[in-house]
Amino acid sequence: MRIAKHVRKLEEYVPGEQPKGRGVVKLNTNENPYPPSPACAKVLAGFDLDRLRRYPDPNYSELREALAALNGTTPERVFVGNGSDEVLSIAARCFVEDDETIASLDPSYSLYKTLAAIRNVRWTGPSGVGPKCSLFLWTNPNAPTGSFAEPAEIAAFAAKFRGVVIVDEAYADFARANCMSLATAEGNRNLIVMRTFSKSYSLAGLRVGYCVGPEDLVRAMYKVKDSYNVDAVAQAVALAAVKDQKWMKANAAKVVRTRERFSKALEERGWDVPHSESNFVFARPPAPAGGRASGKAAHERAEAVFHALRKENIIVRYFRGPKTGDRIRITIGTDKQMDTLTRAIDELSIR
Amino acid sequence: MRIAKHVRKLEEYVPGEQPKGRGVVKLNTNENPYPPSPACAKVLAGFDLDRLRRYPDPNYSELREALAALNGTTPERVFVGNGSDEVLSIAARCFVEDDETIASLDPSYSLYKTLAAIRNVRWTGPSGVGPKCSLFLWTNPNAPTGSFAEPAEIAAFAAKFRGVVIVDEAYADFARANCMSLATAEGNRNLIVMRTFSKSYSLAGLRVGYCVGPEDLVRAMYKVKDSYNVDAVAQAVALAAVKDQKWMKANAAKVVRTRERFSKALEERGWDVPHSESNFVFARPPAPAGGRASGKAAHERAEAVFHALRKENIIVRYFRGPKTGDRIRITIGTDKQMDTLTRAIDELSIR
Repeated sequence: MRIAKHVRKLEEYVPGEQPKGRGVVKLNTNENPYPPSPACAKVLAGFDLDRLRRYPDPNYSELREALAALNGTTPERVFVGNGSDEVLSIAARCFVEDDETIASLDPSYSLYKTLAAIRNVRWTGPSGVGPKCSLFLWTNPNAPTGSFAEPAEIAAFAAKFRGVVIVDEAYADFARANCMSLATAEGNRNLIVMRTFSKSYSLAGLRVGYCVGPEDLVRAMYKVKDSYNVDAVAQAVALAAVKDQKWMKANAAKVVRTRERFSKALEERGWDVPHSESNFVFARPPAPAGGRASGKAAHERAEAVFHALRKENIIVRYFRGPKTGDRIRITIGTDKQMDTLTRAIDELSIR
Repeated sequence: MRIAKHVRKLEEYVPGEQPKGRGVVKLNTNENPYPPSPACAKVLAGFDLDRLRRYPDPNYSELREALAALNGTTPERVFVGNGSDEVLSIAARCFVEDDETIASLDPSYSLYKTLAAIRNVRWTGPSGVGPKCSLFLWTNPNAPTGSFAEPAEIAAFAAKFRGVVIVDEAYADFARANCMSLATAEGNRNLIVMRTFSKSYSLAGLRVGYCVGPEDLVRAMYKVKDSYNVDAVAQAVALAAVKDQKWMKANAAKVVRTRERFSKALEERGWDVPHSESNFVFARPPAPAGGRASGKAAHERAEAVFHALRKENIIVRYFRGPKTGDRIRITIGTDKQMDTLTRAIDELSIR
């Protein structure tokens, strides 16, 4: 009565902190350290107030067409949401019956479990995928690990899967390959590729995400969305960003170069840094000389490094848990930011 | 499989047309004819690109505090959504179990039925409210009729109702009274008042709606929302609009004056114009001299007027159906726009 049972039991998803201080080196939510295209600022500065007064284009036709052209497909295969979060939340309502299950890699984007709980259905890791599983969320490159699956592997999985596979490619612009051609292929019936403007386009504050997939699935998502889910400003600014591919690609390339350089710096300091295809690394601090190398000690150590960095105003992300707790996730910022971090690590008393 | 059964059956909600031509007199979606506060333009022009690069404040603290202060309550009682549409969609997921029912006035905002269908639960009019009904959406002033219920009547209903009552006050700034003090009252346990920036604040393009209600209900809505459901630009522009109450109130007063003047003009031409407390009228064209006064003829006539006006580039709204089809809904624009409409009516060959 009043509040639905499953909502009462719900544990909130806790997004990464957004500190307001300016002196902070913020490497905790995988934002791009470089600003969005100057074309975005121009759109804002010259925005026609009459477009604020009126309802926006409910189907954001111009943006949809630009995204279709960018990805070599038709507008009918493109859906845009108020951030990828909304694309996911709509997919969970479109492609999952009340008695079905949502699956994802494990570990993966920690929101997915909350998403299933909000939808009031079960969540499972890949090992639990059974006949009742109707939506598989495959983050690639994966978060928080940064690991990458070859498109052929994902295609083979989707071909056997009875439900819908969403490949969450939030980090694809930092990776060596992606699944877009699978999503736009003629015979594709159940694979959707999702992208965001929050990372490579430096527009996390704007909330625009989109996906590309089979027409009937996209049409179902349109039925479920709010009438005007992408506001007029977001439509215009995202469009400007799409049209400036050069800017986005140059920034992504810079981030990739810094990632490689920083990964090497950590490795030289004894950290375990699995190769990342994204804009972050998921790294394990070394055991202290003579200390224990693994198990509980490694978890305590990663958490201690997280807190020690925090004291130095450097914010990274720590995910407690058996599969994630021995590492910290570090967003790739500018070279200067990463040097500040490396120096702080060198000076940590717990090194 | 792939698409959930209830989504396959879903009939889409069709929002009012958004024609792109400039020569159109657009009186179909209850937009404000006057621009938003100049403070909104200033915010856009000077927007810090660093705020686009970063994720927004997930809880829009500043906006929430301003809205709380405006309505004489605490931030813990305020929830903000990506348009009122999102507030409604979240409420439908928070306050309704899978076997329960959503109710509303009838006729009312035509989205409500779609909302129930998307949530995969039954919808009913007020006469069907029974023990399984857990959410009542009471639009006041109502749309498309413009009629107004006294707050005391709504309070009495809520006191007896077992579930949650949302008073959708999209048009409250054009009305003589509202239910906000019921929502902020100490003992209130189930009444939520919803407002929007789309009408009186002239910000339909921005997508910001909010609601005020009991803390536990508001907290439940926060659990279900996407992490960053209101983007950084929308937060900042809405905040600027809230702070310029004088601008909003002056525009609302102008609309009300035009509404009274225009209603009188229609009545002088034999139209039936029930008193409206909103920014539109729901008016029935007169029967032609010697013609039949009611029934099927009135419906045909209203639809004919709608089409005839459309030919003159004047767009109003027509809702087919036994309870609505004998009238057209006309948004109140500027005096000049209403004069254009009155002249067109005078010249209609079907008058």
